[in-house]
Amino acid sequence: MTKAKRIPPFLLRLLALSATISATIVLVTSHDSAEVLNMSFVAKYSNSPTLKYFMIVNAIASGYSLVLLFVPSKSLLWHFLLVLDLVITSLLISSISAALAIAYVAKKGNSHAGWLPICGQVPKFCDHVTGALVAGFAAVIIYFLLLLYSIHNVLDLLSTAKA
Amino acid sequence: MTKAKRIPPFLLRLLALSATISATIVLVTSHDSAEVLNMSFVAKYSNSPTLKYFMIVNAIASGYSLVLLFVPSKSLLWHFLLVLDLVITSLLISSISAALAIAYVAKKGNSHAGWLPICGQVPKFCDHVTGALVAGFAAVIIYFLLLLYSIHNVLDLLSTAKA
Repeated sequence: MTKAKRIPPFLLRLLALSATISATIVLVTSHDSAEVLNMSFVAKYSNSPTLKYFMIVNAIASGYSLVLLFVPSKSLLWHFLLVLDLVITSLLISSISAALAIAYVAKKGNSHAGWLPICGQVPKFCDHVTGALVAGFAAVIIYFLLLLYSIHNVLDLLSTAKA
Repeated sequence: MTKAKRIPPFLLRLLALSATISATIVLVTSHDSAEVLNMSFVAKYSNSPTLKYFMIVNAIASGYSLVLLFVPSKSLLWHFLLVLDLVITSLLISSISAALAIAYVAKKGNSHAGWLPICGQVPKFCDHVTGALVAGFAAVIIYFLLLLYSIHNVLDLLSTAKA
């Protein structure tokens, strides 16, 4: 890859890193409590396996982005980068979709299943989770762009090599 | 692509088609009712926005696989195929992750949020959803393999063209 072609993915990776770090920190610091029927009730991300999964995946993606910033782009490593990017993007999509599904129930409830919304009682917690979801969604978009950019480059190289 | 190289993806696409069709049908036919506290309670997939999303994505993926079986693999179309496969795989991952998160709450509940498990009351419904999730998971694995196969082929062609 030429040097000029390395700048856009480098910037995208920096953006992705800040998005996943933000998502992790905002989620970990989410905390709120309420009193319902004289019972104290604490809301935190670790009460939901889904939000824990979302946090762990964003932490892994942060570590991955951080390591990649210091890796020179040799062709053999780049071969695996595309697959590694694909795995990380899949994990990010999976974790944000699961977290969104749970956040939707927390916000709207599900009357058919008898699950009541909880965001009215713990608004600060829900605001934090919403913030984390927005950052996580940004990370997914950035990783998707990185994948498209890589695929475009490979196919471009292929047509140049063939010509 | 040589003819021999076209057989594995063709078989994988046939498998993916049957997996997504199964997931769609098994989910749409899920239905159970129960009486809780003298109130009749009907469980069906359309009561949950997440399960509706899962159903729609599997139906779209089925249509996509079906169309692709009849498309000749010319190089220009194949260019877009990789990106289309990526989009369908992302949708499948997203929908199954969201559905899994909701199915987990339906099975185990979440005592912190006060959401009770419902699978004890409507076991037939939960069995159907589990079946649909298994088929949907198989579809994700198959699409992931298709993506890896495509990426491997492109990189392979690239190194051959360079040599």
